[in-house]
Amino acid sequence: MHTKRTVPPNRLPAHIAVEAIRCGRLSSFDLTLSCLERIEAREASVGAWSYLDRDYALEQACRADEHRRAGAVLGPLHGLPIGIKDVFDTFDMPSEYGSPSLKDRRPAADADAVTLLRAAGAVIMGKTVTSEFGMYALSSCRNPHDQNRSPGVSSAGSAAAVADAMVPLALGTQHTASTLLPASFCGVFGFKPSFAFTSMRGSNVLVPRLATVGLLARNLDDLALFASALAPGFKVSVRPLQPQRFGVVRGPAWHQVAADARAALCVFLRKLPVAIADLELPVEFDRAVEVTYGLLAAHLAHRFAPMPEATQKTYCGPLRAAIATGLALSATNYLRLEEQADRLTAAAHGLFASCDVLITLASLGEASLISDGPGSGELTMPWSLAGLPTLSLPLLKGDRGLPIGVQLVGAPGDDQRLLSIAAWLNIVCQKTLETAQSS
Amino acid sequence: MHTKRTVPPNRLPAHIAVEAIRCGRLSSFDLTLSCLERIEAREASVGAWSYLDRDYALEQACRADEHRRAGAVLGPLHGLPIGIKDVFDTFDMPSEYGSPSLKDRRPAADADAVTLLRAAGAVIMGKTVTSEFGMYALSSCRNPHDQNRSPGVSSAGSAAAVADAMVPLALGTQHTASTLLPASFCGVFGFKPSFAFTSMRGSNVLVPRLATVGLLARNLDDLALFASALAPGFKVSVRPLQPQRFGVVRGPAWHQVAADARAALCVFLRKLPVAIADLELPVEFDRAVEVTYGLLAAHLAHRFAPMPEATQKTYCGPLRAAIATGLALSATNYLRLEEQADRLTAAAHGLFASCDVLITLASLGEASLISDGPGSGELTMPWSLAGLPTLSLPLLKGDRGLPIGVQLVGAPGDDQRLLSIAAWLNIVCQKTLETAQSS
Repeated sequence: MHTKRTVPPNRLPAHIAVEAIRCGRLSSFDLTLSCLERIEAREASVGAWSYLDRDYALEQACRADEHRRAGAVLGPLHGLPIGIKDVFDTFDMPSEYGSPSLKDRRPAADADAVTLLRAAGAVIMGKTVTSEFGMYALSSCRNPHDQNRSPGVSSAGSAAAVADAMVPLALGTQHTASTLLPASFCGVFGFKPSFAFTSMRGSNVLVPRLATVGLLARNLDDLALFASALAPGFKVSVRPLQPQRFGVVRGPAWHQVAADARAALCVFLRKLPVAIADLELPVEFDRAVEVTYGLLAAHLAHRFAPMPEATQKTYCGPLRAAIATGLALSATNYLRLEEQADRLTAAAHGLFASCDVLITLASLGEASLISDGPGSGELTMPWSLAGLPTLSLPLLKGDRGLPIGVQLVGAPGDDQRLLSIAAWLNIVCQKTLETAQSS
Repeated sequence: MHTKRTVPPNRLPAHIAVEAIRCGRLSSFDLTLSCLERIEAREASVGAWSYLDRDYALEQACRADEHRRAGAVLGPLHGLPIGIKDVFDTFDMPSEYGSPSLKDRRPAADADAVTLLRAAGAVIMGKTVTSEFGMYALSSCRNPHDQNRSPGVSSAGSAAAVADAMVPLALGTQHTASTLLPASFCGVFGFKPSFAFTSMRGSNVLVPRLATVGLLARNLDDLALFASALAPGFKVSVRPLQPQRFGVVRGPAWHQVAADARAALCVFLRKLPVAIADLELPVEFDRAVEVTYGLLAAHLAHRFAPMPEATQKTYCGPLRAAIATGLALSATNYLRLEEQADRLTAAAHGLFASCDVLITLASLGEASLISDGPGSGELTMPWSLAGLPTLSLPLLKGDRGLPIGVQLVGAPGDDQRLLSIAAWLNIVCQKTLETAQSS
């Protein structure tokens, strides 16, 4: 067990906290208050929240405590404060998708994912910072480990808030890298489930075939608990499972990977007590980035080009550029992109003929300097395009001591097993670490 | 029972013939020979077949008879000759998709649907005539009831062959009208199942979201038997089911419907002993035809514009026109069409809130004169776009005594129930007819 009596509630793992609430050893009020105090102390440096109403959060927590006292049936997340990336609609909070053009937008209804989390008993703590419409653009959020560095895009606030112990869980999204990149940069566990894992209705869907939720937590048991609230049938408990064989993938864009990140991965792989095979990426992956950006551009143009010109002028540079690119595409260009995406998907599925799980990096290295931009998602992009489940585990460190995520990619629909393999990997790493420290 | 001892084998219903083969009262050879003799007598007038090898058909039939004598397990279609629209790949017969540009094309593998039919024991009789790539163009096939009239497009040969008792069953396809229109014009039962009813791999898919198989037969029990071979879990037996309420749909393009067809439908509806409600089509249907043609044009341009210019020059007029239209579309035009199709689909599904099944016409009237073109599919188009299961029943006649199909539209995925409701409707009509004749 990680927990000690001295751990403040905001640092408790979600699955421990929720059990403590269930048994009456901890109140949702105290947990929420502890998280709010952490936010109060750190928000000026981190900037993870785009909307937070202290009193309203505590009010929800009180209601959760009353329910418990009244003997009501408790959901799996009962009383747990959760951050919601502000690309999900919430009927009771502004939902601005990170865009000045949607300032003070108040949708009438919750996004489906938010409905599920409320039904599971979660305290909706507030909305976390996202880049505008989830584009590759900087936001006001900073990396909690180093204020000069990017927290990643676009679920920046969700990853930073979890990393900084402001909340135990936060909801993100991913089209290309938006959950795994921030998880890697901020040093938390990030899970992008298979395509169609849970409904995306009421969220900022940029490209339907790419859009998924993203789950951020500080350990794998918490991720499983979180996932079980969003997808009926997903098991809460994670049983560690040793895979038959890891397939190591170096690419695409592997030449961009930082030397320290490569070295860290090499050392890591050498220590793994399991068969490892180097996999050559099929030729379809060569154009994965181009295809992804093309699909994004077409859909962004479809959605945003009809907006008034004055509104479009307020959009961030990457969004304006994408709209222009998308408007220049023909229908046959678009259908060719879809065809290439289908081929990449089939080729990606084929990789699992020779291994159970793929292993690679989740980012090109440690968190980039803010002056160098938000960071690159090229290492996660093809797996999102292929609709496969992926995880980032904060198991590596770069030369500056900042986290770098190990990315696991699971076979189609193999979400539950992917978490089990990750749990096995996590245990192996802890043991290796303990051996290293004791020797 | 419809069968009498004097009925020649080629006129037997499929479900009766297959039972007779199973019991040894009829050989596949005799059945196939009887069908071949009918074809020999009538093919010069009807022109339903693009490929037929008499000896090869009889060879398959002999093999089927041998299997039976050897006591092998028999599939649901054992020994039954079936016509295959020549938009399905067959490894042992030319597969030209009705196009001179694919003359003598011999694919290496069967289409998935053909694989299923062979596995069910069918004798693959030959390939039936289709317009080029299934476009709205005339083919060499003629309406068996009147050589000056169109058999409908594009599963023309399959419908004509079944109507003319050349085969008991034939496979077609439908993107917009290609099964129900020929069924209506030729006076047979046509069934277009829900989207994704069975795999379309190895067939001429024009627009993935529109492509389905189409089943043609001379009665509903035969359709169910046929469907059960293509979709595991589909029940072979049809139990008549009286619906709670029919929703009558007059549209879209109802102003184009011939006066005799309208009158025939009115008389028909008045006699039905069940609640009937007139339904207003939602506004999304106004653009159904335009959206369908737009999607077709984009996908046709994507597929055919890369072909050599000399090849493109050989294409029929409607295909060349669609390619030109598709090339002029932008990616955002295309995505708008997809969005409109999604909205129409949702609106179409909503119609079933107030009724079990929709009823309308399957064609604008009796088979059109060949000089007036192949016929219009506007009455079936929106239901194909919405992915709903539809049936055409040859229950009406126009002023010339030619058949006109009644179209039933089922709720999403409600294929089995649609057949049951059709069976009830069919029985009611027979009774009404008997009463009229005896009075």
